Amino acid sequence: MSSAIQKLMEPRSIAVIGASTDPKKTAGRPIAYLQKHHFKGKIYPINPRVEEIAGLKCYPDIESLPETPDVAIVMVGTDKTLVAVKELAAIGTPAAIVLTSGFAEHGPEGLKKQEQLIQATGSMRILGPNTIGMVNITDDIPLSPSSALEMDEFPKGAVSVISQSGGILGSLLSRAAARGLGLSKLVSTSNEADLGLADFVDYLVEDPSTKVIVLYIESIRYPERFRAAALRAKQAGKPIVVYKVGKSEAGIRAAISHTGALAGTDKMYDALFKQTGIIRANQFSDFLDIPAALSSGRVLKGKRVAILTSTGGAGTLVADSLGEWGFETPAPDEKTAERLRALQPGDQAVLDRNPIDVTLAGLQPDLLRGAISALLDSPTYDALILILGSSSLAMPDLMAGAVRDCMTRSDKPVIAYVSPHAPIASALMTRLDVPAFSQPESCSVALGSMLHANQLKSQLTKQGAIASTPASLNIADLRGSLDEHEAKHLFSIFGIPSVREIKLGLHNPDLNNLESLGEKIVLKILSGEITHKTEVGGVALNVPSAEVLQRMQLMSKQVQSKTDSNIEYFLAQEMVQGGLELMVGMHRDPLGTAILIGMGGVTAELFKDTQMRLIAPGQALSEEEALEMLRELKTWPLLDGYRGRAKSDVGALTKAIVNFSNMVATLEDRLLECEINPIFVFDEGQGVKAADGIAVFK
Amino acid sequence: MSSAIQKLMEPRSIAVIGASTDPKKTAGRPIAYLQKHHFKGKIYPINPRVEEIAGLKCYPDIESLPETPDVAIVMVGTDKTLVAVKELAAIGTPAAIVLTSGFAEHGPEGLKKQEQLIQATGSMRILGPNTIGMVNITDDIPLSPSSALEMDEFPKGAVSVISQSGGILGSLLSRAAARGLGLSKLVSTSNEADLGLADFVDYLVEDPSTKVIVLYIESIRYPERFRAAALRAKQAGKPIVVYKVGKSEAGIRAAISHTGALAGTDKMYDALFKQTGIIRANQFSDFLDIPAALSSGRVLKGKRVAILTSTGGAGTLVADSLGEWGFETPAPDEKTAERLRALQPGDQAVLDRNPIDVTLAGLQPDLLRGAISALLDSPTYDALILILGSSSLAMPDLMAGAVRDCMTRSDKPVIAYVSPHAPIASALMTRLDVPAFSQPESCSVALGSMLHANQLKSQLTKQGAIASTPASLNIADLRGSLDEHEAKHLFSIFGIPSVREIKLGLHNPDLNNLESLGEKIVLKILSGEITHKTEVGGVALNVPSAEVLQRMQLMSKQVQSKTDSNIEYFLAQEMVQGGLELMVGMHRDPLGTAILIGMGGVTAELFKDTQMRLIAPGQALSEEEALEMLRELKTWPLLDGYRGRAKSDVGALTKAIVNFSNMVATLEDRLLECEINPIFVFDEGQGVKAADGIAVFK
Repeated sequence: MSSAIQKLMEPRSIAVIGASTDPKKTAGRPIAYLQKHHFKGKIYPINPRVEEIAGLKCYPDIESLPETPDVAIVMVGTDKTLVAVKELAAIGTPAAIVLTSGFAEHGPEGLKKQEQLIQATGSMRILGPNTIGMVNITDDIPLSPSSALEMDEFPKGAVSVISQSGGILGSLLSRAAARGLGLSKLVSTSNEADLGLADFVDYLVEDPSTKVIVLYIESIRYPERFRAAALRAKQAGKPIVVYKVGKSEAGIRAAISHTGALAGTDKMYDALFKQTGIIRANQFSDFLDIPAALSSGRVLKGKRVAILTSTGGAGTLVADSLGEWGFETPAPDEKTAERLRALQPGDQAVLDRNPIDVTLAGLQPDLLRGAISALLDSPTYDALILILGSSSLAMPDLMAGAVRDCMTRSDKPVIAYVSPHAPIASALMTRLDVPAFSQPESCSVALGSMLHANQLKSQLTKQGAIASTPASLNIADLRGSLDEHEAKHLFSIFGIPSVREIKLGLHNPDLNNLESLGEKIVLKILSGEITHKTEVGGVALNVPSAEVLQRMQLMSKQVQSKTDSNIEYFLAQEMVQGGLELMVGMHRDPLGTAILIGMGGVTAELFKDTQMRLIAPGQALSEEEALEMLRELKTWPLLDGYRGRAKSDVGALTKAIVNFSNMVATLEDRLLECEINPIFVFDEGQGVKAADGIAVFK
Repeated sequence: MSSAIQKLMEPRSIAVIGASTDPKKTAGRPIAYLQKHHFKGKIYPINPRVEEIAGLKCYPDIESLPETPDVAIVMVGTDKTLVAVKELAAIGTPAAIVLTSGFAEHGPEGLKKQEQLIQATGSMRILGPNTIGMVNITDDIPLSPSSALEMDEFPKGAVSVISQSGGILGSLLSRAAARGLGLSKLVSTSNEADLGLADFVDYLVEDPSTKVIVLYIESIRYPERFRAAALRAKQAGKPIVVYKVGKSEAGIRAAISHTGALAGTDKMYDALFKQTGIIRANQFSDFLDIPAALSSGRVLKGKRVAILTSTGGAGTLVADSLGEWGFETPAPDEKTAERLRALQPGDQAVLDRNPIDVTLAGLQPDLLRGAISALLDSPTYDALILILGSSSLAMPDLMAGAVRDCMTRSDKPVIAYVSPHAPIASALMTRLDVPAFSQPESCSVALGSMLHANQLKSQLTKQGAIASTPASLNIADLRGSLDEHEAKHLFSIFGIPSVREIKLGLHNPDLNNLESLGEKIVLKILSGEITHKTEVGGVALNVPSAEVLQRMQLMSKQVQSKTDSNIEYFLAQEMVQGGLELMVGMHRDPLGTAILIGMGGVTAELFKDTQMRLIAPGQALSEEEALEMLRELKTWPLLDGYRGRAKSDVGALTKAIVNFSNMVATLEDRLLECEINPIFVFDEGQGVKAADGIAVFK
């Protein structure tokens, strides 16, 4: 780890460039908040116009500082910032936090200034510019003007946050504090002129106070560094939870292939997160719920959940949501039921169902302790949900008191659902590592993420090295848009079989071998430009060999009238019998190169039933990974012998997908778009055949 | 409206049967809460053991009451309740609220007691038993022991709640109060021995204080009464928002038809809600968000939203969520941009984008007022979202103050997103009819529900009367499980065409007419028991006429070896060329009878691409309704000429669906299961043909 980042995050001396005497102003707040939250190190305000700020001696300039600070926070105008940064670097300051805006976020002119800023820093590290700073709660070091720091107290805990948005950092800070969720470090990377996501992930991986890493991401600037850092976090057993904004982003470019339309930026991120073992929060409301669950450090090993409630309605609500998420709520085993019944003698005892309802029994601390202990001890349950009813308004510590005495009995996850608006009771529970939620869906999301995190402990699916380039391939020959025949030839070089076909010229075609394709054939126009052939009438099925010449002439005229294209060549192809239609494609964007598979025909488009994986530079998909993709399709049952059908040749299909990814990796950036659609998959042992495809080169 | 319900909900005198002197105990709370919340009417505690409760004269029994109360709340043991109710009825009490439990919720014995309770009431109306009571906030009448009433104040408003769970009523009461959402009436119907959902919906339709009706439903006991009440609410322009628990419920019975597996209880509720114009909250977290949005009374007429923010990150977050939900966030028109720029002269003004970010401009009340006014006046926007940043922690009334002066400028919806945890600022906004949300998704849900509510103002799709019963039908003849041939005959009587087919006996079949079916045929076993014929090898395609006899013998042996069934008859059917496969089925459960349609084959099952509508008693689907169902299928584009294909004969399909619903309505409860799967839909003008089907009678 860079010791500069450590100095930045855990400084013992801080210079405040441009400090204001008014603690209400942005430039006055960092010192006010450092003092409010009991920073124990040295603070050096710098402002040439005053002698003292908040009881601290104020220095006129950087030169006159009594020592080199661990970090400087810079809040002066854009041009002054350039000067200040240069001076800070000159005295050997390890790192500066540049709050000043007006850089890359302000268009081309700002970008130029940001480049000057980086020039000026030398070997000093920069957080920002345009950042809201960082907050180290573990060590009482808030280095930020965020108004969220107006709050009096922040529970210390194991969750750390890296946010590309300063406002969201403030939002998470105040929301976490309000619910009693303990945090450790928060940092806003913003423009990332120097330090970025990956640097701080690396820091948090080494940080002993951090158990869960939370990322708010607008865009990943350096995907490979990010990937490596994420894998290090996984190695260290520190789950990463991400919220990625930009889900609604429309497809960036109009693509020739269907893959382009189906891929999209957000799906690329999805693939990256999946492949690096990152847990993605789908809704913003999940974004703190999941870390709250994971930071307890408890491990969910199965799906069986006990619900202890004092309000029937909320118990039903939570059980229903769990059911929707695939959790089970079995009744207690006989021994546990006996222990529960013993807690409350009498004929109205209904404690041996699940949800276990203690409404009638009355909310006695002893009863709660007994019930919690019995459920934690029971082999029937993997987790326990405690439901707090309206009584938690009048007695906010009733459940917390009971829980406190029982938590050490077991390492099962315990979470709470709080039915009324009872913020005090909620925070008390959360502080006891019993994360409290106010929505039934949050309970399911929380337990779901714990189960997911437990599964993530196993190895991620590995990719393989690229196979050696086929000898018969002359990459330099490949230019522009290949026609279908050429594309399939390329696929065959990489070991992907195609349907049998013969290329025919419109004038004087050689029809002698047509019969080798069968009684009836498929006739298609051959064109590098027209990719949606069906839509212009460029495909005919079931054509008898004898009619081929006549149909070619007819089709040529039809297509010309629709598209103004002169069709000179045709393909005669065998008619394929049976088999399932899939598609295999590739997609490139700034995040990397992805392989996409899906059911062919209309299924992929209407139901978005696709799977995508990024291939790391120099790597190709492994067979294991290709099979995993297939198994994750909603239509996987069709390949796997659905309702008594024959199984498909998944082995051949897997190989074809791996070979396709090999081709994509080998051809690198020269290959702009590529797709096989459809590829027919026949019954087990019968292989696959590419029936159509495109390949577009630079 | 029954005046008894009005007396129950707006009593001027209340008898409290079994009142306790201890205000902490359940039986002591109703009086304590009536006093705490300033009930202005008369309270008559009844308890033979004390003279006075909370300063009120206490009566020894019902007989000694000085007047007949408008309502009595009953909190004595089960047996004493029976006596009390009888006595209350005897003195002419209009209604009683029975809190006592131990009735139908307690198994068969309790159910017997509940029947005795109803016997005892005579013409008096009962809320409960096992209810938590009712809370009339408008008139300061809390008649409930719910601890949620410990809160000091409840904002008065236009949202009323009917809950089948008492605990959820308490939860909603405290949550609404905490967020500043004004309520009017809350009632927990629980066991519904007498008064139920429909009665209180009817009351609220007439209640001038109620603008939005919120229902928490576990199950609807009287679907037809409920449907009628819901339609009256729609007529009155009062939207109903429902949360229905029980989404995870597994299919109740193993059904022969696919329809049974695809329908399910929860989907039946979905259909009922849709057909009665009810808005369903999909997540519990939406359940108060939607009423909060609707109770403002403002109308959302389009999808264009302006976002005014002082924190860039949250602006992006909200815009992203809106985009996912299909809303647009266009930049301001030129005139509006000019007004915005004029508010903040200087080169850093970036107010003419959307989100409109006032971070740099500083949060001055004048600036906010100017920006809000400009955006409300702009013809570019249908709604406005105000984002509150961290500054709302220090200045909770800054935005509220600015909004207060502008709201009358326009009747566009205005909602707020609160980025930090800032409950005071949130509640201030909500009380100004600017519902404030803490999740970006909630903003989208809220606006989505407002758009939906506006669409609901138009007529619901009407159903039609059942067509007259075909003369050729002898209903009494129909018994047990029809075989495929008989089922298709039944369909044809109701005007649904089928594929051409000939029934063949295994021994001495008459093969003379086979050639009329075409060169090659489909051969199927004919059996009333075996419905999944393909799975037992009971279907062969492409069979040449000449091989039919031989294939029948072979198939008969195969099926016998797999199922032990003796196959005596077969069907020879024409091979259908082209066409799309759909399915049409029916499903009955306690909620009613539904017609279900879906893509046939595997699509309906793997993708759950189905649509369902209940048919009201004595009614059948209208053509308009059948077409609406088809258009709501994800696969509708396939029927509608997707990517240059021919359009399907939607007219013939619509007619077939209507005819199917006619058949289901005509045959009434005698028909247990029925399904056409697949029905082939050919190109426009070519009609439809049922290719397989089942019909099971009592």
